[in-house]
Amino acid sequence: MSESSQTPRPQFSQRTKWAKDQAISFLMQQAVENRDVISLAAGLVDESSLPVDECLRTFDGIFSDAAKGRLALQYGTTSGSELLREQLRIHLARQEHCPVDQLGVDSRQFVLTTGSQQLLALVGDALFDPGDICLVAAPTYFVFLGVLNGVGARTIAIETDEQGIKPEALEAELARLESVGELHRVKLIYLVSYYENPSGVSLETSRRREIVAIAHRWSKHHRLFVLEDAAYRELRYDGEDRPSLWGFDEGRETVILAQTFSKSFSPGVRVGYGVLPRELVGPVCDLKGNTDFGSANLNQHLLAGVLSSNRYVPHVEQVCAAYRKKRDVMLQALEREFQGTSGVSWLRPEGGLYVWLSLPKEIGCGFESEMFQLAAKSHRVMYVPGELCYPTDSPCRRTNQMRLSFGVQDAAGIDEGIKRLAAAVRERTAS
Amino acid sequence: MSESSQTPRPQFSQRTKWAKDQAISFLMQQAVENRDVISLAAGLVDESSLPVDECLRTFDGIFSDAAKGRLALQYGTTSGSELLREQLRIHLARQEHCPVDQLGVDSRQFVLTTGSQQLLALVGDALFDPGDICLVAAPTYFVFLGVLNGVGARTIAIETDEQGIKPEALEAELARLESVGELHRVKLIYLVSYYENPSGVSLETSRRREIVAIAHRWSKHHRLFVLEDAAYRELRYDGEDRPSLWGFDEGRETVILAQTFSKSFSPGVRVGYGVLPRELVGPVCDLKGNTDFGSANLNQHLLAGVLSSNRYVPHVEQVCAAYRKKRDVMLQALEREFQGTSGVSWLRPEGGLYVWLSLPKEIGCGFESEMFQLAAKSHRVMYVPGELCYPTDSPCRRTNQMRLSFGVQDAAGIDEGIKRLAAAVRERTAS
Repeated sequence: MSESSQTPRPQFSQRTKWAKDQAISFLMQQAVENRDVISLAAGLVDESSLPVDECLRTFDGIFSDAAKGRLALQYGTTSGSELLREQLRIHLARQEHCPVDQLGVDSRQFVLTTGSQQLLALVGDALFDPGDICLVAAPTYFVFLGVLNGVGARTIAIETDEQGIKPEALEAELARLESVGELHRVKLIYLVSYYENPSGVSLETSRRREIVAIAHRWSKHHRLFVLEDAAYRELRYDGEDRPSLWGFDEGRETVILAQTFSKSFSPGVRVGYGVLPRELVGPVCDLKGNTDFGSANLNQHLLAGVLSSNRYVPHVEQVCAAYRKKRDVMLQALEREFQGTSGVSWLRPEGGLYVWLSLPKEIGCGFESEMFQLAAKSHRVMYVPGELCYPTDSPCRRTNQMRLSFGVQDAAGIDEGIKRLAAAVRERTAS
Repeated sequence: MSESSQTPRPQFSQRTKWAKDQAISFLMQQAVENRDVISLAAGLVDESSLPVDECLRTFDGIFSDAAKGRLALQYGTTSGSELLREQLRIHLARQEHCPVDQLGVDSRQFVLTTGSQQLLALVGDALFDPGDICLVAAPTYFVFLGVLNGVGARTIAIETDEQGIKPEALEAELARLESVGELHRVKLIYLVSYYENPSGVSLETSRRREIVAIAHRWSKHHRLFVLEDAAYRELRYDGEDRPSLWGFDEGRETVILAQTFSKSFSPGVRVGYGVLPRELVGPVCDLKGNTDFGSANLNQHLLAGVLSSNRYVPHVEQVCAAYRKKRDVMLQALEREFQGTSGVSWLRPEGGLYVWLSLPKEIGCGFESEMFQLAAKSHRVMYVPGELCYPTDSPCRRTNQMRLSFGVQDAAGIDEGIKRLAAAVRERTAS
């Protein structure tokens, strides 16, 4: 069109520039362009675990009753359905092994969001001015790194081992920041506390307590919040039933707890939520008011129906049983294909959807690497490059790692995927 | 708690400060505190029009088929279900009286959001740096004024009459801004093109063409976009079936069209969408990726099912018939109560949910006014103060107006509400 060449280009905001070229978009693009590839990259959930019958039944219950149906189809409030928030208090009390009336939060402190991702984004918006600092585990959830980039925050990765983020490294970094006069820029410590995306690591219990204490101690200029992303909490296959960091925050002032039904029930329903310190509720709801003045009321009524039935807990048990099997298939395949291969190791997760694989140090796994190309193009298998899970300029950053998901593939797909990946790795290391 | 007094206060971002104290929150608070009041304020939709049976039937169709059900319950993509986007092309073509293959946009230019509100917010984020300028009608949709405040934008109200925003006033303001060296800060012209919230005014057809031409002409430094908020488009009760501004933008480069199913189908489903100029798709999806990486897939599958049935169009006709009656009840009641009252006038809307009422100039109607208090506290009726619908410092701003909604009340409630309002006005003017 001739007009096209004459019309001046748009001028976008600084935020748009910061949000550009996210890894997630590239991954989705790759998935679309490589449809015959076995994806161990996608964070999708297991198809067969999706609660089709439960939704049929619950929607029938809602829409066979005109009054109930209308309530679900009308506008809700910005912070979400009171019906669901009451259920969430009971749900959280069960998780915390605590009587509901001793939870220390009321239903107004529950804010319902479009997946827990929206809660993470709102917290980012509420706290960070450009140049403010967030401390994160290394590696950490790469989509949250995108959120932090998107608000112009600086991200500092804290040394992490197989027990999770190291409290002494966290404390040392805070002391360093104080010594260079930057403590006042530190707003948040972010971590995925259960079966972390990407590493599968679950933060060791005594460290949970210590990290909350560190946040309290270093709240010198202003409140230093901890954002506990507990997205995978319910996907526990074995190992300890660990208490949340949130539970150690006795005043309920420091830890923001983000949880979701995307993994335990359905991601297509997009119901997540935050349990917020009292002073954060207003700011987060103001921001959400501008964004969408409330997530879908319909979906909240669905979840309220499901939670108030006696069918939710057995559903989650069934989901966990299915994932436990698939995790074991992946671990067995890794064992078979890589055992004894020098420089190759992986972590055994006790829950969640991911296995974290390390290759010999010299083998880069990024999108541009020979490894990624070999895997995707010649061997038709895809993974998430581990380097995406570190802030770009972090000294903690490593380039020889991969996140492998056993979420979406069935057992045969997982087995075949690992076989292909091993073939690609062998080809790469032989070259 | 003793800890409470010791812990330093949180430090929020600049954005949080900008988003604070929105009118919408105050209104919701008022609604909660005054439950026995007749609300002509709430923008809720008519309860009896909500499609309970249609949802029962469509969900039955989706969840009786395991494969279909799983698709709806799995993650979707950031821009939304392809299934629905294809239906939206057909839907838009019907509205535009144009064959689908001549629409001039492909399905990738449709971005599905959580209500059209999220689309408005994303466009705000994509375009505005603090200090950038948005030109709006006077009065205009007050929630979008909140969005603009929230990103630190400056808002300039353009003179508007009963035919909508005046093109010559728009042009004059652009010329003025150019003369003071600020044209490069102007990013967007925003308007509600059909049955505007709050005034009920529908922009006159030749002005639509002119405004698009003005945006083209004044795209000197960069593209000057028009955001056409067509939320009420389908709620037409009489009068002309006007073409969209979007339709006049032949290159499909300048007008961003925001539409929604919140009014015509159900707000609890929260499915809105934008039809975007090609160059905006990437930026908006990047921002949405950080926000929630996609609105609820389930709801998009529901709407796709409804649109592909032959039941959507008759449903909308039924909805319009119900609102037409309620509008007439409100107009008749106004006539009965206020006819001949000096200084009181109102506009007759041809669609939408609102009647715009003006009182004598000296009678302020804001939250703090004697009028509002009299109405809410003594006469138990609530309205939206018209002054909220102008930028705070605008010379166009008037304080003697009210937005009255016939959306949520039934005929008897509307009639009684206007009776109470008239009593309050009489008491106020007598004082």
